[in-house]
Amino acid sequence: MKLLRHGAKGQEKPALLDAEGRVRDLSGVIPDLTAAGLGRAALERLRALDPASLPLVERPGRIAPPWSGMGKFICIGLNYADHAAEAGLQVPAEPVVFMKATSALVGANDAVVLPQDSVKTDWEVELGVVIGERARYVSEADALAHVAGYCVVNDVSEREFQIERGGTWDKGKGCDTFGPVGPWLVTADEVADPQALDMWLEVNGKRYQNGSTRTMVFGVAQLVSYVSRFMTLYPGDLISTGTPPGVGMGQKPAPVYLKAGDEMKLGIAGLGEQHQRVHAWDPARIDD
Amino acid sequence: MKLLRHGAKGQEKPALLDAEGRVRDLSGVIPDLTAAGLGRAALERLRALDPASLPLVERPGRIAPPWSGMGKFICIGLNYADHAAEAGLQVPAEPVVFMKATSALVGANDAVVLPQDSVKTDWEVELGVVIGERARYVSEADALAHVAGYCVVNDVSEREFQIERGGTWDKGKGCDTFGPVGPWLVTADEVADPQALDMWLEVNGKRYQNGSTRTMVFGVAQLVSYVSRFMTLYPGDLISTGTPPGVGMGQKPAPVYLKAGDEMKLGIAGLGEQHQRVHAWDPARIDD
Repeated sequence: MKLLRHGAKGQEKPALLDAEGRVRDLSGVIPDLTAAGLGRAALERLRALDPASLPLVERPGRIAPPWSGMGKFICIGLNYADHAAEAGLQVPAEPVVFMKATSALVGANDAVVLPQDSVKTDWEVELGVVIGERARYVSEADALAHVAGYCVVNDVSEREFQIERGGTWDKGKGCDTFGPVGPWLVTADEVADPQALDMWLEVNGKRYQNGSTRTMVFGVAQLVSYVSRFMTLYPGDLISTGTPPGVGMGQKPAPVYLKAGDEMKLGIAGLGEQHQRVHAWDPARIDD
Repeated sequence: MKLLRHGAKGQEKPALLDAEGRVRDLSGVIPDLTAAGLGRAALERLRALDPASLPLVERPGRIAPPWSGMGKFICIGLNYADHAAEAGLQVPAEPVVFMKATSALVGANDAVVLPQDSVKTDWEVELGVVIGERARYVSEADALAHVAGYCVVNDVSEREFQIERGGTWDKGKGCDTFGPVGPWLVTADEVADPQALDMWLEVNGKRYQNGSTRTMVFGVAQLVSYVSRFMTLYPGDLISTGTPPGVGMGQKPAPVYLKAGDEMKLGIAGLGEQHQRVHAWDPARIDD
């Protein structure tokens, strides 16, 4: 299934995509797609529905983050060897874990707003892994049974805030609008192999990132198992698994950073596409 | 006011302490103390109540985190010059910001559970600053108007996970039960000067930390203003402002770390005390 939510912030309605890619209303079945509603049993109930029996949504409007109530927005750093090289850093011996503020979460096509003093805002297409069942010290062999599905994430990052302002990376990762997620949550049964997904990102029509989850240093099962040893993963938690080469910081002969008016387009095979316009600092563009 | 919640997880009831330190039930007034309920207007309504008119709670049982729906558990590192020295690190030029997983949050007297492979779990008494009104690019002069109140935080930290396992600090900060908060939220009107609060922490009756918020490198107003430039602070977000000297890692001649059976007691003048027993790894002690 491809699950989504649509509508203005605070008024999101749950829906699914039918085989023809049309939006079918789920609001007569469930009030919302929530973190707690991502478990196996709840997804089975949705899977049992005949999409043709659900009302067609002709004009879904804004695509919202695909579920509500995300507790943790966990990210993995330097998880593609080539990206570590372009960042001038070693491939880590074990996964690098950091947190993105959940207040950074926005819909797949929402505005990305440059922070007031930003000069180095950058892009990162990433595979997002959505937890469906609680995971605590799970083995790699069992890890994927805790995954509800997958989604596209743009781990927007301010490199000066992240790297040059002291301390951990979190300052440059959690800015408002820096976490586009979606357009949909694709349930795990539709992703035959999460380690064989092509992914790409373009800015103003120029392709900067062109990768595949094949070249991850630590795969999805390893990451879920690993993180679950440091903190319990709950339904609705998201692990964004790192980015392949081609970020702005790594461009030669000089880095390329986002500026107002830029258009980002990014996608992962089978998981849909995102499209964000970059705006100068403007609190009116932040939906809260 | 001293606001609190009591009862088992999922069944917490809101309450306040009266002038005699007795627990008075608020559940006839509000269903819960929530993040959204920490704004000025909501607190004014509670302040207008006569505590004597509220039912006395004779046996409050477990003291829960003082509000529900925390979105961000933000921490400041190395914010006391003497603590930076004992950690062998420089006083930072600007605040060090990191995130604690919100799933680490527990009540003031709940069990602290050592992670399965932990050998370096440590304590940190800290002043917690609770956001009541949205803060985005607020000036230092305006910052305190966005603060609902203050609380005691034990920023429990696994030093090996934090420092020796690669990447950012978040791995050693967000383990389950590593975030005791409370016992109550003391509203800002009762804290004459947040930069003049004595604080202390004892393990098994031995005093290890003995400090005062006077020696913070960056004060509360500076921190709220600073963090609000990197991410919007929403009602119910918590900023834990760093720890004074005396953590286990800094003990001479050798570090002292927590072991099963240890008893932590910690407090901040006017904000109450916490009391945690340390347990070996035991998922049954984690309330979820």
